[in-house]
This record gives sequence, C-alpha cells and structure tokens, in this order.
Amino acid sequence: MTGTNPTACLLVIGNEVLSGRTQDANIRFLATRLGEIGIPLREVRVIPDVAATIIGTVNEVRARFDHVFTTGGIGPTHDDITSECIAAAFGVPWEPHPDAWRRMEASYRPGEFNAARQRMGTMPRGATLIDNPISVAPGFSMGNVHVMAGVPRIMRAMFEALAPHLKGGRPIISRAVHALALAEGLIAEGLTQVQNRYPDIDLGSYPYYRPTGNGVAIVAKGTEPADAEAAIAEVTRLIADLGKAPIQGEPAE
Amino acid sequence: MTGTNPTACLLVIGNEVLSGRTQDANIRFLATRLGEIGIPLREVRVIPDVAATIIGTVNEVRARFDHVFTTGGIGPTHDDITSECIAAAFGVPWEPHPDAWRRMEASYRPGEFNAARQRMGTMPRGATLIDNPISVAPGFSMGNVHVMAGVPRIMRAMFEALAPHLKGGRPIISRAVHALALAEGLIAEGLTQVQNRYPDIDLGSYPYYRPTGNGVAIVAKGTEPADAEAAIAEVTRLIADLGKAPIQGEPAE
Repeated sequence: MTGTNPTACLLVIGNEVLSGRTQDANIRFLATRLGEIGIPLREVRVIPDVAATIIGTVNEVRARFDHVFTTGGIGPTHDDITSECIAAAFGVPWEPHPDAWRRMEASYRPGEFNAARQRMGTMPRGATLIDNPISVAPGFSMGNVHVMAGVPRIMRAMFEALAPHLKGGRPIISRAVHALALAEGLIAEGLTQVQNRYPDIDLGSYPYYRPTGNGVAIVAKGTEPADAEAAIAEVTRLIADLGKAPIQGEPAE
Repeated sequence: MTGTNPTACLLVIGNEVLSGRTQDANIRFLATRLGEIGIPLREVRVIPDVAATIIGTVNEVRARFDHVFTTGGIGPTHDDITSECIAAAFGVPWEPHPDAWRRMEASYRPGEFNAARQRMGTMPRGATLIDNPISVAPGFSMGNVHVMAGVPRIMRAMFEALAPHLKGGRPIISRAVHALALAEGLIAEGLTQVQNRYPDIDLGSYPYYRPTGNGVAIVAKGTEPADAEAAIAEVTRLIADLGKAPIQGEPAE
C-alpha cells in the first residue's frame, strides 16, 4: 500500500521485554508517529542484550529497510551494550564523542563523571547526536540507524528531536467504520471484493470486545484519503445490507 | 543463562500492531508464561499480513528456535492468511481438517458455515489442533510452530490448552531489589563485578519513574534460585554501601 514511502524497522533491545518483566510501551508510539511522517513501520524485533544478536540483527535490517530505530541499552550499566554493538556492526571504532562527552561531563558534579557514565559519551565514530532534553545523555544516528533510549519518556523526546531531520513520505492516513453485533464471517466475502477494488488501500477487519458490546471495526489505511474514504463508504453499505448500524470511525477504547 | 532450556520465538502477525492501531497485549503474557514453563522467549518479531514475509520468517525462525508461537491472522477475513502461509512454509497442502471442520460446522446454524468460515476449518496437512474454549475455531501446531489467535482472551485460553503438551525446561525464576534515589552510574561498576561472579544469572538494571519516587531496580533471572538470591544479596550490600535503603523485590507498578 505504501510502495513509494521509505520504510522503517524497530529493534527493541532488552531482556526485560523478553522476560515479561516490562510491558513494551514504545512500539505503538513509534508505529503511530512513523505513520504520521510517512515512514511506515514494516517490522519490529525484540532481541536480548546479547552482542552477537544485536550486531547480526542490525546488519541484517539496516540493509533491508530505509530506517532502523533502536530503543534500549544505552545506559551506564553492564547490560547496556547497544552503542558498542552498533560500532561493531558498522566496523568503526567506539570512541569518545567530543560533543556528547562535553554534555555528559557538564551534567555531573566534578569527579562524578566516572567510567560507567563515560560509556554514555562513547559512540561509534561518525555518529550524529540525537538530543535528549530529559536526561542529557544523547542518542545518535549512525547511517540509517537511529539509537534511542528505552525509557518511554526519554525515547519520545529523542524521537521528536530526530523527526524533523528524517525525510518522510506521504503520511499514512486511516478511515474506519464499525458496528455492534457484526459477524466477521458474514461480511468477509464483501470485504474481499472491496479490498480487491482498492489494492493500494490496506483494509483490515478487527473484532472488538467492550463492556458496551462486541463488534467488528473495519479500517482502511493508505496514503490516498479519497481511496480510503471510498473503501469505507462501500464497507458502510455492506454493514447496512447485513441489517446492522454502521458507526463511522473507530470504537472508543 | 539458560543454555540447556528449550528456546522460543514469538511472531506477532498483523498490520494493526505495526500501524499503531492496536497496543500489543500478547508479548508480555507469553514472555511470562514461557519463562514459567522453562521455554524462555529469545526473540519477538512483529510482521505484516504479507504472505512472502510470513512464509520466509516462519521458515527462518522455526530452524533457529525450539518453539515458534504465532498470534494473529487466523480469522475468516481476507487479511487472515497465517494458516495458509504456514502450509506454504512447510510445503504441505492447505486442506479441510476433519476435526476442526466438524467443530466449526457444529457451531453455526444450518447454512451459516459459509466459505469464509470454512477457511477457519482449513489447515496445513498434519496439523494438531489447539483447543479454543472461547470461540470454537481452533489453533494448531505444525511441527514446532504453534498457531494461535490474536485476540488476547482467546490467545491466552489457547496457550493454556497447549501448555501441558509442551516439554519445558527448568523454570526461569526472578529475584530483585530496588532503591529510591539510586544512581545507576554509581552502582554500575559494582554490578559488573556481581554479574561476572554469577555468569549463569542474567542481571539487569532498570530505572523506574513513579509518582512515589524515582529509583533503580536490579533484577536477577536464571534457573538457579540460590544463585539469583546470592547475587541479589550482593547487590543489596552495594546499595547500602552507597547510603541508600535497599528494598527487596520489584517496585510496585
């Protein structure tokens, strides 16, 4: 549906998501924002804090997608190895970044910019900083790989600092209609025909279960609002033909 | 840390997570439950409803992990293509499964088991059913690939139906200590030494930000409770040596 747009892959780096300790709170934010700036997210991988896995995965996906975003693993502790792994993936030295180092050093009292914290001022040679307005320690871009913090509040601030520098495509827009007590199995054949008539639109069917009632939402996404609206208008008629009441938009969460 | 345990990979199949429409609610549940039964989750991929991507990814990860779990894409609509893609990945016919077909047909009124719904009774040849106590339409296992629904309530019921049939390893257990106003950069060096003394334990350091205060939690995970407890005891002393008050366990969410 978005063949001419640049593409994105997200790497969520951290054992804490794979162990179930931490509920991911970054995928949805980045998916939404990347759609808005026209760099649709095409794949997410959650991988552990294991150097060989990080290096191999980065090299695989940076060749396959226009942009790679990473979250997690850029703090001061032993399990924060993302930055040095990016250097290894690009085959460049991991060395003090003068501007990052200066920012970090200025943020601590004299004598407290210790070896662990100095790791946060150490980056792959050639990295461009991503500002961190929350907690100073910057992220960075290395080629098409954008390295951000895992803490959601900091990640979001970093993404917004980075976003103006990304060359996006046409925004991915969304139109939707839903209905209570609609059976997916009865509207499925009609949906297939609508999808076939609008091949550039991505038509999805999503059951929902709410205290206020169960139903199905049909969502049309793409870069062409007129097509999405036309597809949803056809789905609206399908719903009415089945004797249900179409409600425009997404159901309330 | 879990070298002798079987490993798991999760494929979350669905455009709705990649577009930001839907907040994933399956990763954390499966990560937690798989740790409990000793089949730690080592990777998650979120991929779109694109046949070539599903087939290629399934074939890649089923060779690399002991178990592959998939969620999503097994409903009746045009965007539900997981089942036929699994058949293609295994190079077997996609055909009516007699038991699944019978269950599905019995759940509809005469004449309502239409072509769209029949797709939910169609499976790769050789599939073993996973019961669905919520909405009838079964999931299935094909070799080491376990195919489940994407709706969290149904996925969870399917997983619990499947779990007794999985041969797990030693459960992954967790011990933790945390402290308010603890600086990661000051405890980092000590943590590295503790990690080095307990190489079979996975020691993670996680800042938290709560209305009741900010701090850091240190979590030890592994298959050996005595090692995890010893590592956390050492971290507890590190925290006390830094003049902070160690609190056993994870911070309240």
